[in-house]
This record gives sequence, structure tokens and C-alpha cells, in this order.
Amino acid sequence: MTYFGNVAKIQFEGKHSNNPLAFKFYNPEEIIAGKTMEEHLRFSIAYWHAFTGTGSDPFGAPTNIRGWDQYTGMDLAKARVEAAFELMEKLSLPFFCFHDRDIAPEGDTLQETNRNLDTIVAIIKENMKTSGRKLLWNTANMFSNPRFVHGAATTSNADVFAYGAAQVKKALETGKELGAESYVFWGGREGYESLLNTDMKLELDNLGRFLHMAVDYAKEIGFDAQFLIEPKPKEPSKHQYDFDAATAISFLQTYGLADKFKMNIEANHATLAGHTFEHDLRVSRIHGMLGSIDANQGDELLGWDTDEFPTNLYSSTLAMYEVLENGGIGKGGVNFDAKVRRASFEPDDLIYAHIAGMDTFARGLQVASKLIEDRVFDDILDSRYKSFQSGIGQEIVSGKATFQTLEAYALQNLPIRNESGRQEKIKALLNQYIINA
Amino acid sequence: MTYFGNVAKIQFEGKHSNNPLAFKFYNPEEIIAGKTMEEHLRFSIAYWHAFTGTGSDPFGAPTNIRGWDQYTGMDLAKARVEAAFELMEKLSLPFFCFHDRDIAPEGDTLQETNRNLDTIVAIIKENMKTSGRKLLWNTANMFSNPRFVHGAATTSNADVFAYGAAQVKKALETGKELGAESYVFWGGREGYESLLNTDMKLELDNLGRFLHMAVDYAKEIGFDAQFLIEPKPKEPSKHQYDFDAATAISFLQTYGLADKFKMNIEANHATLAGHTFEHDLRVSRIHGMLGSIDANQGDELLGWDTDEFPTNLYSSTLAMYEVLENGGIGKGGVNFDAKVRRASFEPDDLIYAHIAGMDTFARGLQVASKLIEDRVFDDILDSRYKSFQSGIGQEIVSGKATFQTLEAYALQNLPIRNESGRQEKIKALLNQYIINA
Amino acid sequence: MTYFGNVAKIQFEGKHSNNPLAFKFYNPEEIIAGKTMEEHLRFSIAYWHAFTGTGSDPFGAPTNIRGWDQYTGMDLAKARVEAAFELMEKLSLPFFCFHDRDIAPEGDTLQETNRNLDTIVAIIKENMKTSGRKLLWNTANMFSNPRFVHGAATTSNADVFAYGAAQVKKALETGKELGAESYVFWGGREGYESLLNTDMKLELDNLGRFLHMAVDYAKEIGFDAQFLIEPKPKEPSKHQYDFDAATAISFLQTYGLADKFKMNIEANHATLAGHTFEHDLRVSRIHGMLGSIDANQGDELLGWDTDEFPTNLYSSTLAMYEVLENGGIGKGGVNFDAKVRRASFEPDDLIYAHIAGMDTFARGLQVASKLIEDRVFDDILDSRYKSFQSGIGQEIVSGKATFQTLEAYALQNLPIRNESGRQEKIKALLNQYIINA
Amino acid sequence: MTYFGNVAKIQFEGKHSNNPLAFKFYNPEEIIAGKTMEEHLRFSIAYWHAFTGTGSDPFGAPTNIRGWDQYTGMDLAKARVEAAFELMEKLSLPFFCFHDRDIAPEGDTLQETNRNLDTIVAIIKENMKTSGRKLLWNTANMFSNPRFVHGAATTSNADVFAYGAAQVKKALETGKELGAESYVFWGGREGYESLLNTDMKLELDNLGRFLHMAVDYAKEIGFDAQFLIEPKPKEPSKHQYDFDAATAISFLQTYGLADKFKMNIEANHATLAGHTFEHDLRVSRIHGMLGSIDANQGDELLGWDTDEFPTNLYSSTLAMYEVLENGGIGKGGVNFDAKVRRASFEPDDLIYAHIAGMDTFARGLQVASKLIEDRVFDDILDSRYKSFQSGIGQEIVSGKATFQTLEAYALQNLPIRNESGRQEKIKALLNQYIINA
Repeated sequence: MTYFGNVAKIQFEGKHSNNPLAFKFYNPEEIIAGKTMEEHLRFSIAYWHAFTGTGSDPFGAPTNIRGWDQYTGMDLAKARVEAAFELMEKLSLPFFCFHDRDIAPEGDTLQETNRNLDTIVAIIKENMKTSGRKLLWNTANMFSNPRFVHGAATTSNADVFAYGAAQVKKALETGKELGAESYVFWGGREGYESLLNTDMKLELDNLGRFLHMAVDYAKEIGFDAQFLIEPKPKEPSKHQYDFDAATAISFLQTYGLADKFKMNIEANHATLAGHTFEHDLRVSRIHGMLGSIDANQGDELLGWDTDEFPTNLYSSTLAMYEVLENGGIGKGGVNFDAKVRRASFEPDDLIYAHIAGMDTFARGLQVASKLIEDRVFDDILDSRYKSFQSGIGQEIVSGKATFQTLEAYALQNLPIRNESGRQEKIKALLNQYIINA
Repeated sequence: MTYFGNVAKIQFEGKHSNNPLAFKFYNPEEIIAGKTMEEHLRFSIAYWHAFTGTGSDPFGAPTNIRGWDQYTGMDLAKARVEAAFELMEKLSLPFFCFHDRDIAPEGDTLQETNRNLDTIVAIIKENMKTSGRKLLWNTANMFSNPRFVHGAATTSNADVFAYGAAQVKKALETGKELGAESYVFWGGREGYESLLNTDMKLELDNLGRFLHMAVDYAKEIGFDAQFLIEPKPKEPSKHQYDFDAATAISFLQTYGLADKFKMNIEANHATLAGHTFEHDLRVSRIHGMLGSIDANQGDELLGWDTDEFPTNLYSSTLAMYEVLENGGIGKGGVNFDAKVRRASFEPDDLIYAHIAGMDTFARGLQVASKLIEDRVFDDILDSRYKSFQSGIGQEIVSGKATFQTLEAYALQNLPIRNESGRQEKIKALLNQYIINA
Repeated sequence: MTYFGNVAKIQFEGKHSNNPLAFKFYNPEEIIAGKTMEEHLRFSIAYWHAFTGTGSDPFGAPTNIRGWDQYTGMDLAKARVEAAFELMEKLSLPFFCFHDRDIAPEGDTLQETNRNLDTIVAIIKENMKTSGRKLLWNTANMFSNPRFVHGAATTSNADVFAYGAAQVKKALETGKELGAESYVFWGGREGYESLLNTDMKLELDNLGRFLHMAVDYAKEIGFDAQFLIEPKPKEPSKHQYDFDAATAISFLQTYGLADKFKMNIEANHATLAGHTFEHDLRVSRIHGMLGSIDANQGDELLGWDTDEFPTNLYSSTLAMYEVLENGGIGKGGVNFDAKVRRASFEPDDLIYAHIAGMDTFARGLQVASKLIEDRVFDDILDSRYKSFQSGIGQEIVSGKATFQTLEAYALQNLPIRNESGRQEKIKALLNQYIINA
Repeated sequence: MTYFGNVAKIQFEGKHSNNPLAFKFYNPEEIIAGKTMEEHLRFSIAYWHAFTGTGSDPFGAPTNIRGWDQYTGMDLAKARVEAAFELMEKLSLPFFCFHDRDIAPEGDTLQETNRNLDTIVAIIKENMKTSGRKLLWNTANMFSNPRFVHGAATTSNADVFAYGAAQVKKALETGKELGAESYVFWGGREGYESLLNTDMKLELDNLGRFLHMAVDYAKEIGFDAQFLIEPKPKEPSKHQYDFDAATAISFLQTYGLADKFKMNIEANHATLAGHTFEHDLRVSRIHGMLGSIDANQGDELLGWDTDEFPTNLYSSTLAMYEVLENGGIGKGGVNFDAKVRRASFEPDDLIYAHIAGMDTFARGLQVASKLIEDRVFDDILDSRYKSFQSGIGQEIVSGKATFQTLEAYALQNLPIRNESGRQEKIKALLNQYIINA
């Protein structure tokens, strides 16, 4: 427990504190709408960014200064476990998430790779027991190794498909062993570089087959985690099959998988797809498929996945609004799929960044909860759509109306009176809640 | 027949002609892959851009010089019919498309509006009979009149929903009267400006109800046109519900409408959604839902729907490739949903622009057909995916494989050999076909 | 004085007020850093959006309900003057801005057009005298009339260039007559649709000639307003010559005009160019060319100029930070170049929207002022760049260093120690100031 | 000479050849407009993509199979030299380009690093002598090493500035030693991640100082290469200072450097900045600053620098049109700053990709030359701008006109007649030239 030794456990000091090493909004014990903040937010650390991220980018070498980098191989893997549980402790983070290859290195054979994984899983399990930390979700990295150059479940090479299947089989076993609440499928390289050499139909059919096998195997071993699809429109592929929530839902419907999966919505993925974060959360929610959140933010003036730590209060407020309206995030949580900037290379930056993100979501929760308590949006909607509560509107929503009855109504030529959408007034109201809540 | 009187009927002169008033590629009678170019392409003129478009934009007044603008009201509507059939004749365009409000003005009451429509429909029907021109598809304009400020089927005002229903009922009757091959639903203002005042679930449910009523009514009156959804991601709304093909398909699946509709894919709408034109065509095709094409092109450096006439040979080639692979465009066609630039305001520009577009698609058809004849992409795909034809790959696609059998296979640790995707080589090949075909 | 008769003059009620018809942050009399809020912000109403805007868009007819629309021609022009001074009064807006064609209609001849202008200018002048309202800036609309289809100063038609010159001559006289503080050149259609038919060099040379003539004429008549260029990257043209601040500055440098002009930076124009609002303000500021602000906001997920009323507190804070660091906005101001959404069509929405915008900038001023008072960013910069205060860094900035001396220094191979940029910590700090300031 | 041993020297076989290992358009000896294709195009290979690129991306490990990867350290550097001259020979590429760190590894001290460089430079020089290949340009990599995390000339750390100066000093000496035709400054990390911690003015001033030192030192050592700035808007930094050609020109003007530098325009950088490739070439050309070309292409639907090999004939035609209108590319050339896709990992893909790029530019040269020979665009411009040849237009361009004389002209109210811009007709014409030229 020494990788962040210079920093004490982060305490809650309230919004007027000017201590950069204190929470100003996140108070795990604070009760909001009948639950603690901790229960609402279910914060999670992302192993890949926090413990295997290096600060490298396509134009430059690693910059991050990390105490565990003095080790290699399995020693490095073990040191990262120590660092992870230390950081979770310091930040009061109840959950963590990982890809299989984040926690243990590949060996020369799949057998050796699996043994490496088993060794580290055992250590993690022990740490979980003593610390009380839990696994929000795990997943399989099927995009970094060159064998996945053409994808995994959507590869053009059947041997690679088989390898990926073996890898997910083991990942499901790992999830069960560690009691994972959810299990995530992020598309990695499931997409295409060029339509000119791609059999899209075969690739999607194979993806459908792969996910059915995963569902079957999880059932067989009694792994009851919530399965999640994480949409992303592009990067690394030119086009990723799980473009956005609507596309992923369509895919699941086409392949008869819609009742087995929910969505893990990432802010930066939504904006890369041309949507707001709250849009993709809303789409997921109204389909009963809002499963979990990957909390970060993009730079809308840049065209790649910047995975910044979330600091935008508008975004966190509207995200938590969707979560509260959803009746909570269920077996999901708020996972910081976010990386410190390459220029924020000191270990303390990991602390500062998580404080920033946790406070941003905690404030978002406060504001969203107050908006609901005051029925701000509820009243707006009730008033705006009231014409569907009675008369012709009621006939429409109850299914009684037909084109004939509606035409008869319209031919009366009653004056049509629309009401202003009041967008500017509503946005000013939102600003007041963000400042005053 | 005088609105384009200075221009003779456009003839085919071959690719080396330098007569700007001749086709260089489009030869309606030329046989390609067993059908005439005319049968393959089913070109259509878009009434709205060609006959009601003015050249205005958000920053400036109309610029277009059009002979029919000397008239107003119903006289204008009649003059436009004349102009339309004249232009179709000069350009050998077999089809046309319109919104109800393109062809006849609104009256003071819905009754009067419908009478105006009936008058013009009768004139159009007569012209169709004498000219042999046909209606590719019609649709209802439910976005220009202020009553649709909050949408039509997704409005917050039940009276507006009813009005829209009456309008589509009449449009279906019009389509039947004129023998429309298809009927299009473009979302207009079916979307939202701000999620803050929007009940997305109610709005989508209502859209589902609306489309079911349309299906029911068409069946009742025996109107057997192919129903089409035209996806668009944004504009005029901040977010349009029919974002792209995948989203529209998902919507149809959710509301039990997938077997009643196909897609009308517009190039510029696809690119605004972050896809290539050919991507959205492919997505539609593999779902058995490629219904029709709105032919135009956007400027990928601009963020709005520029609706330029299509001149990009790469795009037209790949579009026609999807059409040929689809076994043809069925009851759809290639409709020029394209407008001359505001600075191309002379009547002749309408001629030049359609020649440009028709030649671009005719060339695309030639190139695509040759690519298929030579099995260029077929051979690439056969080779690339051959591992799924036998052994473990065959087990995967036949549904015999499970995670257990695949793991057993992977644990043999056979060397995995991927092959290059050869994207650069394929693109050079495509260039040769575009120049040599 | 009856167009907004149902709404009383807007009062300041403080941030906890929940009266939507009160200011929560804007208190004209409040002293911040030695000046009143009114003096800092110099708020201005934009005549075009507020009084001539209709709510139409490329897909639909006008929606706005405005009392003055019962009039036409010069009566309408006079009614709008009344409405403008009423709204400025109700909102405590000290300034207004207009294009020539906003305030008076064109006549059949240029002479008549100028007479119409003179008539309304006299009425405005009288209203200014009695109300104390002032003209922040005026400009000439050289983009709406079809004669400007190919641009004005950059047109391909010399007659149009001459017409534009006459129009700006008159506009400069109008500005002098009304005591305008500044005069704006926004590029309108000064750009190109296609490089294929464009002589860029001639067009830019002509633009240079045009601006020199304007400078000369203003000097001749003793009009001492600050001349401003308003950059915009695209729309209506595919490419606008004044793409962004850097491009406009480059143009002014090339044509020997850099000392005569400053920049009028619009938020939505900056984001369309791929910059943040604060970026283009900063670029202008460090060139000594920050002249005025067009306050609005875009939707970064949309690709056109949405001109929304500004409600984003991050953006207004960073904008006001640049203004304060600039020593104030000089003869410029904060002009609401913003329009109510098409769905916000009631007269009251104009009130709500301006309250939203004014409060957003007032809050931004408060936060920015506190950030400066607490030396938040100053301390960060002092620490970050301290190596340039002494030693080798001091030699660099003083101009003493050469490649030889620097190489000699580097060849010592002293260890190089960079410090973290601390971006996440700084963003968390900014959130605290926005909430607490 | 064995790294591409399986492929023979690429021959020209003409446009109907279907040999993928032959040129179809590039014939070095072919005379076009008085010069050979080789003289016009001055093709160059980019050392970094071709010989140090690995196929890795932010989501995955290297995929490229390269014979030289069996070596490490200086042996690897030497093997790459062999491979480079072999590839240039096979592809008839007369030029190459490199960063200092592409050709030789860093040592433990700057002295050792420089010795490594010297060793390899001597080997390259020998190879140049025997092969006749030449150095188009060289540059310094000041972005990969972590020391440059905050930039080089615009770093916040004076020690890093000094290091960069030493590095460029050495690079200038290297350029002189090898007879480089040009020398490139690409901004690397000269930009900012966040404006919140950035002193933009100091950083730009320092960049000005740095470039002045470079100019001075080159003069001192008699290195007469053309200095080039390579603009890029973003990536790796959130905002790069040399955003686009206009911005870079503005910077050079501000710091008194405009007569010492020209532009190296990269296609993908231009499109990332929101411009077409030909736009930034045109801007550079009309400022007398078109210096060289980095030939590649981006995917306009993706937001990062994909650096694809150029295959778009529209783009290469319009690029070569600018070059021909410029009177040639001078001391610059057409450098393939392009990388094979990650999935094109076989050595042969380097061959295929360069053939694709070279043929695309060769065809572009043919088409552009024919467009000029036939005066296609010249005639369009002559006709379009003819009003500036006489009368009032001539007075404008000759500088005689004033606002007063122009107003007098306009007050005659002569009818203004604009002519159509004919964009659609022109684009159809361009298609014919691309196919027929």
C-alpha cells in the first residue's frame, strides 16, 4: 500500500472546501431520495486506464510515472493489484472493472495465459474479501493482440473466432469466480475498415452466433451477471457494428438476443456517434435496456475518443436524471472509463482526476434529484402533452383512432393552437438548479 | 411545353462527346446484365427541388429564374405540371415524385386543400396517360406548415396528429389514384429540439401507432405501393428519430412493422449520420429492406444537407453495386432529391444538373456491372472468408460449435495466420474500373 | 409601447429567485472589479433576430407570433423601432445593433432605399435621445438580395461590387449619424461555392480594395467607430474567406489593414471553425484585436449556425475571462446574435431568452472576476512557465540565445524535468468557482 | 537488397494493364507540358511510415511483417537504410524524407544520439551517391520523446526548448550534409491541450524566436534548402498552432518570417481543418507559398489523421492543377506521407500502396494538364470575371474607384445581371476529363 503513499484517504469536506484533495460533493453516506450516494452511483475504477495506461499516444512514447512500472511480467501484474486496491481504498471506490489482459499477461500458449489469469484472479479475490471492494464487470480484450487484426467474432478467420470464443469462455468463468455484477461486450475491432473487402452479412451473423454461445455458456455455468453491449461508432475500426444504442438494440432484436442484454453507455462514444450522452441513455432507458455507464467526456471539437475524466456538470446532471428515472442503474454502475491527459503524468493526477469525476457525478446526482423532487421536467411534460390525456388524443394513445376517425376530426377545421416549447426558459432553469441545488 | 423551349431533347452521344447538352453515359436502351439502363435505374425527378425550389437559403431570397413563376395559386400549380412533364420528356426521365403540397396549394380549409389536390391530380393523371411517365412515389409534407412546429406523428399536440393522419390518408388515396409504385415516410420534424421538454417514449409510441394506421388504411383501400422509411439524422430537428437505416429498422422491429416497410436511402442523409452512402445501402440490403434511392451528394466538410446533384463516380459505382447485388431496386428507383446550387439559377442549370446526375449513375451502373461480371469483389470475399467453408469455420456457421468445442480447438495452440486485407490494392483496382469500364 | 405589454420591466432578484421573469445574476448596478456590470457587459440586442426574424427555416414557414407583423412596408419598419426600444427598456439593454436592411425596406431604386433608411434613422435617433439607448454597431446586409448571389466585395460582377460600395458608404454615414461605437463587416457571401469556378486571388484583392475604400471614406467623413471583422468559416458559402480569427488577421496583414480593424468574435462561428469560443477570443486578444462579442452558442453535434441564446456557463465564464484580461471590451459589447428556437414562437420567449443569455454572461463575469481576483490561472501560469524567468529560459525570451548557445546548454545532458499540466485538477477548480463564486 | 525480393522493379504497362504490380499511369519518362512525369511529380517515400511504422494503433499492438525487424539498435537502423534504397529502386522513387529519429536511435546522451545519426547519415550519403536517389526534405522529431510532452519550441520548460534547438541545429547540419532540397517544420506538439493552463502569447513568441534562430543558423552554415511549415489543426494536441495554411501564414507575417518559409500542404491535415486539399494548396499558391505536398488522404467521416494512401482521382487532379498553375512544385515534391492500413501488414502491401498512390497522382497530372491545355477553367474564369476587365470593374481593380465614384455609378440604377455559376455543368465536365484524359 505505497503507490499513492503521499496522499491520505480522500475525505468529504463540502462544496466550499478549497482543498484539492477532498471531495466537495461526493459524500458516500449522504442520503438522496432514499439511498446513499454510494448506492446510487456505484462508482468503479477502470483497470486499463488507471493501471495499464501509459500516457502514450500515436505520436509519442509513454509519459506516466507509475511506481509499479519497476516490475515486469507477473510481478507487474501483482503490483497492479496492490495499486488498484490501494487507490480504491483512498478514493472510496466500491467497484472495479477489467479486461482479462489488463490483469495478467499473455503466455506462450493459451494454457499458460489462462494460468496467469488464474493466479491473479486468486489474488484479486483475496483482496476483494479483505477490502470489501467488488467487481462491477469484466470483459475480454479481443483487439490488442495482432491475431484480432480483422476482428474477433466478426473476423474473416475462423481460427480467430475460435480463439475469441475460448477467451470469452474463460472470461465468463472469471466473472463468476469473482462475482461480477455485469459482463461487458465492447466491440473492439468488430466492424470494418473498408466495405470493399467485407462480407457484412456473414460478419453480423457470426457476431450473433458468438453472443448466443456466450448466453448459453453463462447459463450452463450459472453465471448470472447482466450482459451488456457497449456501443461505439468508430475507432479503432472505420465503422464499428455497435454504432450506437439504437443500432445495438436493432442487432439484438434481429438476432433474438434483446431480452438477454442491456446497454453500457459511454459518454464519449455517444458523442462520436453524433448524439448527446443523455440521448443514448434515454434510448436505452425507454427500451428497458439501460444497464451501466462508462463515465468520461469527449471533446466535441475533436473526432476521436479522448476519454477525458468527466467534469461537465450539464452532462452529469442529465445522465443522473436518466438513471434516477430508470429507477437506478441496477447491476451496473458509474465506471470511470477515463484517462488522465498525457501531460498529467504524475501519480497524484490519478487522484485529482477521480476526485474531479466523482464530484462531477455526485453534483449531477444532487441536481437531478432536486429536479425530480421539484417535478421540474415532469410538470413541463405533463403540461406539454396534456392533449393526449383526453378527447381525440386519448383515442389515439388508446388505439381506438383510425385514419378515418382522425380525418373526420380534422375536417371540422377546428383552430389548431400549439404552445411554445420554452427551450430557453428551461435552460435558464437548469442553470439555476446546477448552481443552487 | 415551353419552359425549357431553348433546349432540345437530350440525346446519348457517348463518352467522348463534348456537347454539354448530351448524355455521355446514360443510354436508356443500352442493355446491361440483361436489362436496359432505364429498367435498372428507374430515374425520377423530384418535384420539390425542380419545380417548387426557389434558390433561397437562410441568408437570402430566391434567385431561381423559372418561367412558371409568373403565375400564382392554382395557375402556378398547373404551370408546374406542364413544366414537369416537359422536363421529364426532354431528359427521358420515366418517373417523378412529389409531396402533396408540392403539387397543389393549401386552401383555407382541409376540404379546400383536398379539392385543390384533386384538381391537380386529375391533370397529372391525364399527363401520365399521354406521356407514359409514372409516379415513383408520393409523400405528405408534414413539416412546412407552422402547425407542424413540434412534429406531426410525434407532435405534443393531438390535434396536429389528427391533422397529419388526415393528410396521409389523402396522400395514400392520391398514390392509389396515380398508381404510385412506392410511398415514402420521411420524418420531417419527427424528432426533438431538446430532450429537456421531450417525452421520447410517448412520441415514438405515437409514431408507431401512426404507421400502423397507415398500413391498415392502405390495405383497406387496396393501395399496394411499397412503404418506405427515409432515414435522416438531423435537420430540421436537432435529432430526427429515423437517424439512419439501423435506427429506422430497430424502430420498425420494436413496433412490429418490419415486414411492411423498406428503406429509401439518401446519400446526403447517410453522410450526415456519419456513414457512407454505400454503408446504409448495405445495411438495408442485408436486412432485405433496400427499397429506393434518393440520389444526391453532400459536402462532407459541411454539416448540413446540401442536396447537391450527384457527380461522384466512386459513390454512384458503389451505390449501383449494392442495387445490382440486391437483384435490382424493385418498386423503387433513383430519384434526384437534389437541387441546383443557389448560384445556378438559370433554367438550363436544371438540365445540366440532371444530365450530370444521370450520367454519374449510368457510369456507376456500367462500372458496378463490370465489377460483378469480372467477380472482382466476389473473388476477394471468397478468398478472404474461405476459412468458414470447412473445418472449424464450417462448424461455427452451421451452428454446431459451442464455447466448449471452440476452446478445445483453441487449446491446440495451432499457429494463427491472418492474411492482409489488401485495401490499397483493391482501391487501385476500383480506379481502373472507373476509368476503363 | 405595447408589444410586450404583458411583461413588466425585468428586475434583479438574486440567484435564489425562482421567478422566471427576473434576473438572477444580472444586476446592472453591481460593481465588479471597479466597474458596473452594465459597463463591463455592454449588452446589445440584435435587430435581425429579435425584430425581423420569423422562425422560418429551410423546411418550414414562419412561426413567430409578433405584434408588429400586422403592418407592412414602412409601417412595419416603424413598428419594429417601437418594439425594439420597448424591449430594450424592459430588459435594461443599453445597446442595439442592426443591418441596414433590418431597419428599413428596399425601394425600387437605390435612392428610394436610401430615403427609407433616412426616415427610419431619424426615428431611431429620436428614440435614442429620449431613451438613452445607444447603437453598439451597425452593418450592411449584402447577402439577402439576389444581386449578391456571388458575393458583394468578392462578387464576379463589377456592378454588384459598385452597388455594395454604395451601400456601405451609406451605412457608414448612418453609423456616424447615430453615433455607432463600432462598425461590423461580416462576410455574408464573401467566399466561394466551388473552387472550380473561382478566382480566389482576384476576389481577395477586391476585398482588400473594398475595405481600404471603407477606411478612407470613414476617415473622410470623420466616422471614428472601431471597424470590426466578424469571422465565420462556412454558411451561406461553402467556404467563407474570413474563416476564423487567424485567417481574418492574416488577410488584414496581407492587405495592410491590420491597424484599422479588430475582431467581432461569435461563439457559434468559432465552433463551426473547429475552435472553442475562448480560443478565438484569445487569438484576437494576443494580437490586440479583440473588438466585440456576438453572444450565442452552437450545438457542437450539429454542423450549422444554430445561433442559440447562450446558456453555457463554462463558455460565458471563459469568454468574460478573456474580456477582463483584455482590459475590457472597449468600443465593443456583448451582442445577442441569437434567435429563439423556431418552437419558441411566443413574444414572451424573446424575454425569457434574453434573461437566460444576460444571466449567463453576468454569471460568467462574476466567476471570471473571482478567478482573476484569486489569481487562479495567473498562479498556474506563473508556476508553469517559471523556467523562462531566469537562466537559459531568460536568455531565450530576451533574444540572446542562439542555436549554438542552446546546443552547448543541451550537450551538458542535465536531466530534464517536466511538471504535470494538472488539467483535471484545474477543471475541478473551475467547477467550484462556477458553483461558489 | 532482399527485403522486397519477391517483387521485381515496377514497370509501366499502361492503363489497360491488369497487372497489380505494374504502373498504369505513372511513366517517369512520359513528357507532359514540356517536362517528364518524374520532374513534375518528384515522388518521395516517407521513411517514418514505410520503415519505422509498425501497424500499431491506440487499441492494438504492431501487425506489420517487416524483414528488418529481426534487427535492433544500430543494426536495425542500417537494415532500414538498405530496405529504403531497395524500395525506392523498385518503385522508381527519386526522393525520400525523414525525421532525425526515424533513421537513427537516440543514445544515452545527446552526444551519443548525434553520433548515431552521423553514422547512419554517412551510410545514406553513400547509398545516395550510388543510387542517384535524393533527399527531398528532412525534419526533426520533437514529439515522440516524453521530454516533449508539453511541446518543443512552445514548451513550458526552457530546458526542453534548448534541447529542441540543439536537435534542429543538428538536423539542419544533416540536411546540408545530404543536400536536402527543403527542410520541414511540422508542429508536433506545438499547440495546447487546454487553454486553462496555457500562455498562448509566450508560446507563440517562443515559436517565433525558435524559427528565427533556425533561419539564422541555416544562413550561417550555408544551408539553402527551402524552409517549409506543415500546417495541421489538431492531433496530437487538442489545438495545434499551425492550424491551416492561413493560420501559418498569419503567424509568419506576425513574426516577420513570411519571406523565409513556404507551406508543405498535407491532404489529410487540410480536411481535418475543414478545408479541401485544393483549398489549402490554393491559399498557399496565391500567397506565393506553395512549397511541397504531403500526399495522402483522410476519411472525411472520421475525425483523426488516417494518412491513407491517396487513391481519390478528384483530389489528385485538383492538387496537380494547383501545382501546374504554380509553375511546378519547385524544391518540393509529392511525398507519400501515408501508411498502409493496419490490416495491410504484408511487405507487398507497401508496394501495392505506393503503386496506388503514384498512379493516382500520375493520372491527376494527366487530367490537370489536359484541363489546362484545353483552357477549361481558364475560359470559365475569363468569362465569369470579364466585368473587371473594363469600365467600372477596371476602375475598381486599378485602384481608381472610391466609394463616392462607385455610389455615383450605383445611383444610375442600371439593371444588374448576374450569370449562373454553372457548378453542376462544370462538375460533369471534370468527370469527363477524369475518364477520357
